[in-house]
Amino acid sequence: MKQVERIGVSLDKKLLAMFDQLIARQGYTNRSEAIRDLIRDRLSQEELAKPTTQAVAAVCVVYDHHSTRLSEKLVGLQHGHLLKTVASMHVHLDRDNCLEVIILRGKVKEIKKVADKITCLKGVKLSRVNITTTGEKLA
Amino acid sequence: MKQVERIGVSLDKKLLAMFDQLIARQGYTNRSEAIRDLIRDRLSQEELAKPTTQAVAAVCVVYDHHSTRLSEKLVGLQHGHLLKTVASMHVHLDRDNCLEVIILRGKVKEIKKVADKITCLKGVKLSRVNITTTGEKLA
Amino acid sequence: MKQVERIGVSLDKKLLAMFDQLIARQGYTNRSEAIRDLIRDRLSQEELAKPTTQAVAAVCVVYDHHSTRLSEKLVGLQHGHLLKTVASMHVHLDRDNCLEVIILRGKVKEIKKVADKITCLKGVKLSRVNITTTGEKLA
Amino acid sequence: MKQVERIGVSLDKKLLAMFDQLIARQGYTNRSEAIRDLIRDRLSQEELAKPTTQAVAAVCVVYDHHSTRLSEKLVGLQHGHLLKTVASMHVHLDRDNCLEVIILRGKVKEIKKVADKITCLKGVKLSRVNITTTGEKLA
Repeated sequence: MKQVERIGVSLDKKLLAMFDQLIARQGYTNRSEAIRDLIRDRLSQEELAKPTTQAVAAVCVVYDHHSTRLSEKLVGLQHGHLLKTVASMHVHLDRDNCLEVIILRGKVKEIKKVADKITCLKGVKLSRVNITTTGEKLA
Repeated sequence: MKQVERIGVSLDKKLLAMFDQLIARQGYTNRSEAIRDLIRDRLSQEELAKPTTQAVAAVCVVYDHHSTRLSEKLVGLQHGHLLKTVASMHVHLDRDNCLEVIILRGKVKEIKKVADKITCLKGVKLSRVNITTTGEKLA
Repeated sequence: MKQVERIGVSLDKKLLAMFDQLIARQGYTNRSEAIRDLIRDRLSQEELAKPTTQAVAAVCVVYDHHSTRLSEKLVGLQHGHLLKTVASMHVHLDRDNCLEVIILRGKVKEIKKVADKITCLKGVKLSRVNITTTGEKLA
Repeated sequence: MKQVERIGVSLDKKLLAMFDQLIARQGYTNRSEAIRDLIRDRLSQEELAKPTTQAVAAVCVVYDHHSTRLSEKLVGLQHGHLLKTVASMHVHLDRDNCLEVIILRGKVKEIKKVADKITCLKGVKLSRVNITTTGEKLA
């Protein structure tokens, strides 16, 4: 069972008003939730700075599906790192371009290595890696 | 048909040696490809700085699936912005936590608005947004 | 006179313990101060996303001082944008390299334009721009 | 003496046109220079990812100069880490706020530690750290 604690935070009235405005615009209905999100995000970033942290990543790759055998190579790469690839999703962007989102799990440094290999593939136009912690420790 | 041009770049021998080392470590077999990737990435970042650029995003959300009705709310949010959501993928991380990857298409500023709304949902522990251009203009 | 308000935040015991650990390691002696810093940073980032926000920037430039007339060009550029340059500082890094830190004030979009011009100068090896809001509104 | 090498890069005509447009807008007069800048920046980022890389940083701090004894504490912190602080610069932003830019040299991980300590000081409203390599190895 989750144990909830209540803490007090003192802050300037003007600062609080600006924060309330921001989170209302974002869509928060609850100030505690917004502050918890700030805290979780900070902790997660801290964790991700360590190369050995267990993490999960979405590698987004934009490529021209006319590229010779790129999709096979992508599949090959994922199988060569079998333990780390969880799933992948394919989206058609236009007549030529596709977006492939590949979910990888593993240590931060290993994810980066595989992501580098994917970026290097001929035919890949753009790639972005989105790493996050698994939330296991973040209540 | 793609028209390829060949340009000359002069650079210091030492700088070239360091670059060759880096790209070999990353897995490139071709220096031109590595330089093209740098150029595409720079152009893409420039495009994404404009709020009206058409883009595609992978919103990664880590959440506890015990949270009351979060998955319904996520689905609701996606349908409320029907034009922009392309697909989504669900990954089990551990007994409690899930990763949902939601693909959104639209203008950069609209993607950010929907991503904000997703982040705000109670039960969402972490969220990351990965925006990229669609590669349409990047040969 | 500053008016201080006290708000309550409820959060999971484990999450709080992790946050307390992190901020102790960073050097905070006061939890409220750490949370205020998270809030101010978030508000500042939000402000800086708007091109017309008044901001202050430190442009860091690493360059080889043997480069023909680079320092004159840097000075020229600063005077051509007189209103925006506040000050600059010069640091010797080694026999060849110097660091110049140039403080610019103005709208975010104007700062970026001048920073681009500085980056382009022949002889400039590396440049980084650090933009922040002026803190005027952040109590 | 610097030894310059000339390499050939083949790329799509459309991609080249877009790149030429971008760098003209930024102010480059020379395509080689723009590509060298991309390469140096990539190498520098790679270096900075290693905690032991020798680097130089500009820590920008916005604070209210009415804060009790903050400037003394800042000076104290800099002297306590004497080897790493090179110089600092002070800029008045408005009636209440100041910007202090502190130049630190040392290993990436040590710079981050000192920067954390500075951020934590009561009275500091915002802080940004700008780390760059010293350019020693980048011709």
